[in-house]
Amino acid sequence: MLGAVPHTLIRLLLVLVLLPAQALAARNVILLIGDGMDDVQITIARNYLLGAEGRLLMDELPVRSAAQVLTVDERGRRIYVADSANTATSIATGEVTSRGRIASAAGSDRSIETILEQAEAAGLRTGLVSTASVTDATPASFVAHMSVRTCEDPESIHGVKRYGIVLPHCRQYTRANGGPGSISEQIADADVDVVLGGGSKHFDMPAEGDTRTVRQVAEDSGFTVISLAEDLNDLPADARVLGLFSPSTMPVRLRGEDDRSAERPQPSWLNQLHPYLGKVDMPDPMRCEPEPAFAEMPGLADMTRAALRQLDNDEGFFLMVESASIDKQAHERKACGSIGELQQLDEALAVALEFADGDDDTLVLVTSDHGHAAQLIPATSLFANYGAPVYSPGMVVLLETDEEALMGVNYATNSFPYEEHTGTQVPLFANEVGEGLIPSLVTQPEIYDIMHEFLFGKSD
Amino acid sequence: MLGAVPHTLIRLLLVLVLLPAQALAARNVILLIGDGMDDVQITIARNYLLGAEGRLLMDELPVRSAAQVLTVDERGRRIYVADSANTATSIATGEVTSRGRIASAAGSDRSIETILEQAEAAGLRTGLVSTASVTDATPASFVAHMSVRTCEDPESIHGVKRYGIVLPHCRQYTRANGGPGSISEQIADADVDVVLGGGSKHFDMPAEGDTRTVRQVAEDSGFTVISLAEDLNDLPADARVLGLFSPSTMPVRLRGEDDRSAERPQPSWLNQLHPYLGKVDMPDPMRCEPEPAFAEMPGLADMTRAALRQLDNDEGFFLMVESASIDKQAHERKACGSIGELQQLDEALAVALEFADGDDDTLVLVTSDHGHAAQLIPATSLFANYGAPVYSPGMVVLLETDEEALMGVNYATNSFPYEEHTGTQVPLFANEVGEGLIPSLVTQPEIYDIMHEFLFGKSD
Repeated sequence: MLGAVPHTLIRLLLVLVLLPAQALAARNVILLIGDGMDDVQITIARNYLLGAEGRLLMDELPVRSAAQVLTVDERGRRIYVADSANTATSIATGEVTSRGRIASAAGSDRSIETILEQAEAAGLRTGLVSTASVTDATPASFVAHMSVRTCEDPESIHGVKRYGIVLPHCRQYTRANGGPGSISEQIADADVDVVLGGGSKHFDMPAEGDTRTVRQVAEDSGFTVISLAEDLNDLPADARVLGLFSPSTMPVRLRGEDDRSAERPQPSWLNQLHPYLGKVDMPDPMRCEPEPAFAEMPGLADMTRAALRQLDNDEGFFLMVESASIDKQAHERKACGSIGELQQLDEALAVALEFADGDDDTLVLVTSDHGHAAQLIPATSLFANYGAPVYSPGMVVLLETDEEALMGVNYATNSFPYEEHTGTQVPLFANEVGEGLIPSLVTQPEIYDIMHEFLFGKSD
Repeated sequence: MLGAVPHTLIRLLLVLVLLPAQALAARNVILLIGDGMDDVQITIARNYLLGAEGRLLMDELPVRSAAQVLTVDERGRRIYVADSANTATSIATGEVTSRGRIASAAGSDRSIETILEQAEAAGLRTGLVSTASVTDATPASFVAHMSVRTCEDPESIHGVKRYGIVLPHCRQYTRANGGPGSISEQIADADVDVVLGGGSKHFDMPAEGDTRTVRQVAEDSGFTVISLAEDLNDLPADARVLGLFSPSTMPVRLRGEDDRSAERPQPSWLNQLHPYLGKVDMPDPMRCEPEPAFAEMPGLADMTRAALRQLDNDEGFFLMVESASIDKQAHERKACGSIGELQQLDEALAVALEFADGDDDTLVLVTSDHGHAAQLIPATSLFANYGAPVYSPGMVVLLETDEEALMGVNYATNSFPYEEHTGTQVPLFANEVGEGLIPSLVTQPEIYDIMHEFLFGKSD
């Protein structure tokens, strides 16, 4: 034991020698966001992909924390269920705002500076990778400012029509009104170095008051614009890159057998007369299968790898990587879709950890923005003994796993075509660089504080 | 910086001096289980009790991990949703079993030794505290062995009748068949030092083949049997205590206003014709109110404090404390009930931490056995803009919080009188004594391993 003393002294001297070098070393943050990825989504994906005793890569990260999701309404009053716009704003800016807002303040349209903009200003490189449109709420909240998330392009800034309803406009942001333009136009003008994802349709229309498309504006302002997976392999070093691989959200990796999603249990007429009588037909069990449209897409890991190649430099960088369709597929009651997208996030994490490679200059964070509708329910009810048919009032998927077991997934937050988000706290993980930096529970705005302090030191 | 060297040496010498003393010191484990306490239940309780930015005591514990819930059926095949019997068995014994089993093996009735029994054998004191019947699944799995959890007393061992259905018997466990008798009889015979909770009805009947009640058997075997909250205050030092404060589950602390639980949204006739038409009446918002029957009960913190007084000794102890009705109230769609019980668990944690008092001899763990039905849904749908009434197909509680905001809680796992458990991973927390002992994800059986190693050292 006393032999440890010289060792202690050597370590101390090493620290003293290395300290000035470390203070000068570039620092990088890789922030991975699983949209809608709560503990339930993680458990469902793990059970299906690896079995109940399996381990995702994120499960093995040394730091586990959780994040309180904070939301207010336009008058600043508490709301308990968030959307991806206000939560991404929390993480990107440290400020709590209202649902639908993109780095803008509740109750006013005050723009809030983001960690990506601060990194740019400090001379760091910056990047955004998403399986959604790059104009969608999560990536947008790091690079743009807007009152309503659906104002993604020069047309929709005037209000987009969905289900016969015209959603709110953002005309105060048009250039005609002295604003910065729609989200796609703001991206085309931004100093960000790498933007990869879907959403080409938001760039393939004329920019406001311009003969050029938004895509051409982006090219003219220095972006190399690409659209094919193979383009990622030979990007010129130091090029600024805008990759748009699909018109809107990128196709997901997995889908239900024969493209099935959750289905409603079918009670017999006798059961409809009385809940203790008759029987119920549950949806047929199924496996997940590859989504054919995914074949032409770069994977999230491919995009992350390409982004890291472009961003790696002596001044440091900030990169946000989003697996968007854990959320989008859960809205549509597609358990297989969410599972495949969570797998993509875990693969992107592998790329991030390979880059970080145990060095202390790269903080890797994995988190989620909000909870989602899916519940992992019993394939056989706890009350099956009682003889009556017991089944969910929502929609159900029964998945056959590699463990030759049945997993029930339930969607029952509403009866609308899209399920609701939920208000649960969400997971937060970090690599060993995060040890000592992250308490066991944080608010989402504190994730901003942690990244800010890591990149720029303690603010006063 | 060089001034740190003498300090380092002093610390090293201190470690060398204190090491032998530490190796001899008694070690204690206080294991707190919130039955059904997943991330959602924690968030709901925190929002209601403290606001969305509030902090429960468990939120502040320095070690956060999560536990994979493992279950098999009688043939050893994977099941993805557990009950409290098989999960408490996982934690108490390190062995995965099937739903309903109390420290007995799936596919056979082999009894599995529990951490409490091992602690007893090693000369440690042992205790069980629960707001359920002490014969209920969670406490029972630490002290008894049974094929079916409902075999709680000499009558129900022959099969209990519920909803007109006779549930499975456990006659192979009767004394007439050479077995150890029902769960209450096994407790009366056990060497455990402190057992506090509900369930007097399971003790107030004749023991099998005996003229005495099970309670009398317990007294004859050395228990001081008490039944009033005030009895906890003047227990003889070193007495073995069986406290039975209510006939079955103890009354909970909180209930919904006017004893309301979740209610079904009421769509208008037009909305029943088409989901985009008409309107829906949501349940009236409400607050939680005190449950009158709770007034005469000892709180979980009171029972925990009394248990610690009896257990504290030079040889160490094992104590399990369960807040049982987070689960039981969620089964009945009573959000306020679950909230009050989670608060009780947090108060019991305060007592445990006060006892541990920063010493390194007491490991305090907080965990849950399985997920539960409640979801935190938007009080105002994410899709409210579309004009159609959007509402849950399940039952809903709208809670008014101290933040003057509305929190929606949804129960929609089934339409039976009791909701289902869910299969999500569950939280695991520890005090600073757990630092370095607990990876960021464990299986429930590994919680047994951690406690075992802490109490008895590494097994071969």
